[in-house]
Amino acid sequence: MSNLEKRSSLPHVVIVGGGFAGLYAAKELGNAPVKVTLIDKRNFHLFQPLLYQVATGSLSPAEICSPLRLIVGRNKNTHVVLDEVVDINPEQKQVIMREGVVNYDYLVIGTGVSHHYFGNDHWEQDAPGLKSIENALDIRRRIFLAFEEAEKLSSPQEKQEWLTFAIVGGGPTGVELAGAIAEIAHKSIKKDFKEIDTTKARIVLIEGMNRVLPPYPEDLSAKAQASLEELGVEVLTNRMVTNIDKNTLNIRHGEQEETIKARTILWAAGVKASGLSEIIADRTSAETDRAGRIMVEPDLSIKNHPNIFVVGDLAHFAHQDNKPLPGIAPVAMEEGRYVAGLIVAKEKGRQIESFSYVDKGSLAVIGNNHAVANLGFVKLSGISAWLVWVFAHIYYLIEFDNKLLVMLQWGWNYFTRGRGARLITGEISEKNLVSQSFNHGNSVSNSEKELIKS
Amino acid sequence: MSNLEKRSSLPHVVIVGGGFAGLYAAKELGNAPVKVTLIDKRNFHLFQPLLYQVATGSLSPAEICSPLRLIVGRNKNTHVVLDEVVDINPEQKQVIMREGVVNYDYLVIGTGVSHHYFGNDHWEQDAPGLKSIENALDIRRRIFLAFEEAEKLSSPQEKQEWLTFAIVGGGPTGVELAGAIAEIAHKSIKKDFKEIDTTKARIVLIEGMNRVLPPYPEDLSAKAQASLEELGVEVLTNRMVTNIDKNTLNIRHGEQEETIKARTILWAAGVKASGLSEIIADRTSAETDRAGRIMVEPDLSIKNHPNIFVVGDLAHFAHQDNKPLPGIAPVAMEEGRYVAGLIVAKEKGRQIESFSYVDKGSLAVIGNNHAVANLGFVKLSGISAWLVWVFAHIYYLIEFDNKLLVMLQWGWNYFTRGRGARLITGEISEKNLVSQSFNHGNSVSNSEKELIKS
Repeated sequence: MSNLEKRSSLPHVVIVGGGFAGLYAAKELGNAPVKVTLIDKRNFHLFQPLLYQVATGSLSPAEICSPLRLIVGRNKNTHVVLDEVVDINPEQKQVIMREGVVNYDYLVIGTGVSHHYFGNDHWEQDAPGLKSIENALDIRRRIFLAFEEAEKLSSPQEKQEWLTFAIVGGGPTGVELAGAIAEIAHKSIKKDFKEIDTTKARIVLIEGMNRVLPPYPEDLSAKAQASLEELGVEVLTNRMVTNIDKNTLNIRHGEQEETIKARTILWAAGVKASGLSEIIADRTSAETDRAGRIMVEPDLSIKNHPNIFVVGDLAHFAHQDNKPLPGIAPVAMEEGRYVAGLIVAKEKGRQIESFSYVDKGSLAVIGNNHAVANLGFVKLSGISAWLVWVFAHIYYLIEFDNKLLVMLQWGWNYFTRGRGARLITGEISEKNLVSQSFNHGNSVSNSEKELIKS
Repeated sequence: MSNLEKRSSLPHVVIVGGGFAGLYAAKELGNAPVKVTLIDKRNFHLFQPLLYQVATGSLSPAEICSPLRLIVGRNKNTHVVLDEVVDINPEQKQVIMREGVVNYDYLVIGTGVSHHYFGNDHWEQDAPGLKSIENALDIRRRIFLAFEEAEKLSSPQEKQEWLTFAIVGGGPTGVELAGAIAEIAHKSIKKDFKEIDTTKARIVLIEGMNRVLPPYPEDLSAKAQASLEELGVEVLTNRMVTNIDKNTLNIRHGEQEETIKARTILWAAGVKASGLSEIIADRTSAETDRAGRIMVEPDLSIKNHPNIFVVGDLAHFAHQDNKPLPGIAPVAMEEGRYVAGLIVAKEKGRQIESFSYVDKGSLAVIGNNHAVANLGFVKLSGISAWLVWVFAHIYYLIEFDNKLLVMLQWGWNYFTRGRGARLITGEISEKNLVSQSFNHGNSVSNSEKELIKS
């Protein structure tokens, strides 16, 4: 009798996506009288709040990724499957993967969000976003190659283009990227080059609203902007991006058109639901919001589908304060835990209350020792907020296996200003370095692009 | 006056390649009255002796790579240039790069070696070798995806194919890879899967000679084989590979033909000179050996070109014991240092003795706490050899910036059996996971392959 058959008399919970929401649901169900199958197309959980540190060369991928088999795969009732879900069939209670089909009693979907270019998907090749480890390594390559190119070129104008970094979007990710790049250019590597002065690098943060970190209280936004400017970041608010190409960013400021020449453009301006969202909406008649997120019931289920739950960034939960919950890790964790508890209660024939999120606050980090924190009862900025940020992240990393090393790496980086992970990886082949590294997406078809990504 | 002009009255040493040979030449010249330009197509030095630990998920790339700018780029007389050398012109004393030309007074070339498939280059896609960080990440992906595939498939025969790992070549790299994969399958991950028993994985090491580690004394070869077998590696000697495809390895054993069904085949059987070798030979009329390495004079220069030196694995130095020096890091370091000293002496009008290598011994590691060491005056095996190996590597890493973290990572891995870096990276896209990960090279043209590698 195989393990699968042994488990077969128990209700089967299928969880799609090993992000914070799915993973916390799986962890919570690890000892429950159910069988659990966790499906993800990657073999690891990504600690996304620290992804910008990989993109800026402070941490290595392995320091913020933990294999799913290590976190939940050793639970006796849990199967981890490396595959991609392509469809669901609520009538048959089936999940269809590329390489198989699985039946469920309860389905929990947490496949998250990806970048949103608001109808300009072709901007992605010149202005990548930061969602995956591969995105982070690509951005790291772009940032550090830019200094190398500036060092080699003789035209002052070209040098300056390579030394200009534009970040679109003044939310936490944009603020964190801009702060980290400014630290690198203006401090960490200022002694490493002979033909350029990296302290003259221009780092521009562009935000459409009238202040950075728009969801934060106004005084924290102002403090964040002041900290960014102290690090040498130009903060441009009330700006809309109208076009992006390889080295040019067109922006509109009221009636004015502005142009920024920058060879490194990063996108942190919007998110949209993952590809599975449309299929879910079609198969369940669920409503979606403008970003494609699934509107969920007060118990996080899909309307008329009480056994299908949507959790994490993919869920639009509008039953609290009349606005959707933010797409942040603490919300996802809470939602994952709630659904796990609800499933166990249902199996026991019990009812539990609707989901409600207890706001633990928001944090955004700016450079090596500044942050802003809105903890509800108190607002912090500067080094005190940074310490809260450090300990909050270590606390959550405790639940995985990497905390000790990340803490050491942080300490190490703090004193050495991040010497470690500044690697430009990805083969450098026969072609021109610059065009090969930055333009390879221009002239290839979509099917070839898929190959490139592999 | 730019930095370049300030340096211009001094003799110019151009070093091509930032491996052990080139890097040690550059380090040695850091305070000498010369100007130095170090050209590499990567921005980091790779500590190659530990590369197999990245391929087997124990270390992260950043732990064995150090940015060249950090090691030598801060020396006042040293320029680091990220570019690829495509030609040399000894008459004009010029080095031609993709993006520029540089004049030299002394030229030091250490561009190393790559894999040698003995006329069967098409085997590479199914049996990759281990030379670059990208190779290591590719191999890591293959190894860990193989277990995932075996877990998913239902046919016992297919499961067994995915659970069979064949390593071609019984030199140090092959021995190290086989030992590490056996540790992973038979120990580290044995609790992680539900549908397969990873302790039944078959790890086969194939060697053409009559024993593993052929250059070592016979009794050490025997001890290495015994240690490998204890870890569960099948050691097949006197075997010649006759064909390789996706899941089949054909080998000849005397008159017998044998077939091994394996989905993961790794190549550690031979090396050939880097692509620059042919150009050097053509431009300088240098002789080369069968592997394309440049025959050098007793002072490591090229015959009739007293100002051009070849160092490291690319050099064939046959003036000691009538056999070429082995392609190992200690030889490369010594050669780099020697040439640096020779250049300084020449500038002072002095002569120095011919190069001679003082053999410090050879080491090969087998699994988590075994090794064999031939230190000349003493032969070691088992844990004592492993300790020598650990301290020798830490000693050499001391010269860069990573030693502390690598030591901590090793300690960590030793007690946790390497939980950290077992990540399958590289985007998993729309296509079938298996074919996408393993076969994408089959149906694409060469120009597309270049794109894939980027």
